[in-house]
Amino acid sequence: MDSNEDRLIARYFKPIARHPGALRLNDDAAVMTPPPRHDLVVTVDAIVSGVHFFPDDPPASIARKALRVNLSDLAAKGAKPVGFLLTLSLPKGIGDRWLKAFAKGLGSDARAYGCSLLGGDTVHTPGPLSVSISAFGTVPTGKMVRRDRAAAGDSVVVTGTIGDAALGLQLRRRPALAARWRLNPAMRRHLTGRYLVPEPRNAMANAVHRYASAAMDVSDGLAGDLGKLCRASGVAAHVEVDRVPLSKAARVAISSRSQLLETALTGGDDYEIVATVPAEKVRAFRAAAKAAGVALTQIGTVVAGRGARFIDANGRELTFDRASFSHF
Amino acid sequence: MDSNEDRLIARYFKPIARHPGALRLNDDAAVMTPPPRHDLVVTVDAIVSGVHFFPDDPPASIARKALRVNLSDLAAKGAKPVGFLLTLSLPKGIGDRWLKAFAKGLGSDARAYGCSLLGGDTVHTPGPLSVSISAFGTVPTGKMVRRDRAAAGDSVVVTGTIGDAALGLQLRRRPALAARWRLNPAMRRHLTGRYLVPEPRNAMANAVHRYASAAMDVSDGLAGDLGKLCRASGVAAHVEVDRVPLSKAARVAISSRSQLLETALTGGDDYEIVATVPAEKVRAFRAAAKAAGVALTQIGTVVAGRGARFIDANGRELTFDRASFSHF
Repeated sequence: MDSNEDRLIARYFKPIARHPGALRLNDDAAVMTPPPRHDLVVTVDAIVSGVHFFPDDPPASIARKALRVNLSDLAAKGAKPVGFLLTLSLPKGIGDRWLKAFAKGLGSDARAYGCSLLGGDTVHTPGPLSVSISAFGTVPTGKMVRRDRAAAGDSVVVTGTIGDAALGLQLRRRPALAARWRLNPAMRRHLTGRYLVPEPRNAMANAVHRYASAAMDVSDGLAGDLGKLCRASGVAAHVEVDRVPLSKAARVAISSRSQLLETALTGGDDYEIVATVPAEKVRAFRAAAKAAGVALTQIGTVVAGRGARFIDANGRELTFDRASFSHF
Repeated sequence: MDSNEDRLIARYFKPIARHPGALRLNDDAAVMTPPPRHDLVVTVDAIVSGVHFFPDDPPASIARKALRVNLSDLAAKGAKPVGFLLTLSLPKGIGDRWLKAFAKGLGSDARAYGCSLLGGDTVHTPGPLSVSISAFGTVPTGKMVRRDRAAAGDSVVVTGTIGDAALGLQLRRRPALAARWRLNPAMRRHLTGRYLVPEPRNAMANAVHRYASAAMDVSDGLAGDLGKLCRASGVAAHVEVDRVPLSKAARVAISSRSQLLETALTGGDDYEIVATVPAEKVRAFRAAAKAAGVALTQIGTVVAGRGARFIDANGRELTFDRASFSHF
């Protein structure tokens, strides 16, 4: 983008590039040195206007979502955030006001999570606005928590609550649903807020690498993501659906429309952590979550076999697909 | 992208993710460990269809360009490539054949340059196809070569030849120019080929961090990029235009249309390295370039002052702007 890009970078992004290795964004690359006896964990996630967020979402929220979906990956891998690279694809008509608000949101999260802007590329696009972020974190050598190490006998735990963002997305699309679901305004705001800006569980990173045998963040729905973890580990998980943690708002919505349970379990955008924890470490993991102020719920158990099974209060297995939700 | 993404990743991208830390793309993040006493150098560049490449460019060329523009940044910083993260934004209608060819081009360059695919994100977009790559390299601690360390008395050197890609872009847009510029088919192919797929100078990385005081890759035109390096370093550069290395094809084109000299000096997409080298190290730098098989040309000198000045054979300074090229 040349001189205009230089101007934008100087005005809005240099102030948030506080890592010394970012060289105040005056160079073509950034430099960083992971601490001795640590590995670097790297991840990338992109969000596209009209696909992963709404074009009229506040620019600060778009920025924060773009960073937080990556922070969530680092948290689930047990890694401490260090910094990130930003690719910002801008359509015509994005002005200074938008960029200023975007940079402000990005900068405030960068500070809050200790994850500095290290560099970036700003390109023009005839398409929708999109944001791709590559984020870097550190873990003690060999301690990155993978998907493929769950073992029979481990407990299955999740942080926070599940399904809020998926319900929030539906409310964002059709605000009239709030009344049908019997939500009060605070509940509606809770659900739409969880879609707009996730709450990544970086406070749990140390506990994850100390105690979890396997973990991943819940981005594509608990059912599908736990299924992936089971496949990677060559195990099965039995989940008691009644134990899956739901917010008050989600419980009210589901009690009005029972089919929303499937939405909650499969809808995605939770950005919670699902982890498997060996039995002897569950107590320590719980204590660490409590100390971090993060709700933690045991929802099931890892067993021999294949796939994640969701069992309701009557002992029946739920099956999911995109179109329908049914009992056997 | 869910299950379809999983299928695409498995089929085309897993085979090129050879770094053990890529975990065969089966996880949410990758892990890598820079060698002891080394810094990590990180950079990101994106290319957008219709902006940085043509929609009908061969998919393998698009992949190679996307990776190579990043490899070029690593080379200019003196860093050895390690790996990269890929964000692929795909419009509808991109099929398996396109992806297969793209992955093949990407994989062949990843192997050739020792820069493995570590992870990625594939998203759908209603906009044009775009590719963003974050690339990682290593340098001995403290040795990343910056833009802002050029000093008066240093020599200004460039690798390869300048201007080919900018002329190639014009030819790509208006093939009829080839005849007007008196180019034979081989010359035309040389220029368009240089635009289609750059030749990053990674073979020079060790020499750059050993001998250069400052360096950057030439992506936005030699005149502008050397100007940036001078501004960052607080110095001036005097460049003798007649010494700027041109390919035979570029020389023929410029001798037909003298105004193409400005295109060559300002047009960009060269992906050569411009470096400043202290006088006592020039001989060693030349020898290293020769050993690496990379042409190296001294084009000027760093002096006190501000800005990059391009002086013609008659001792007159050239001035450039987007519209015109003129002598004082």
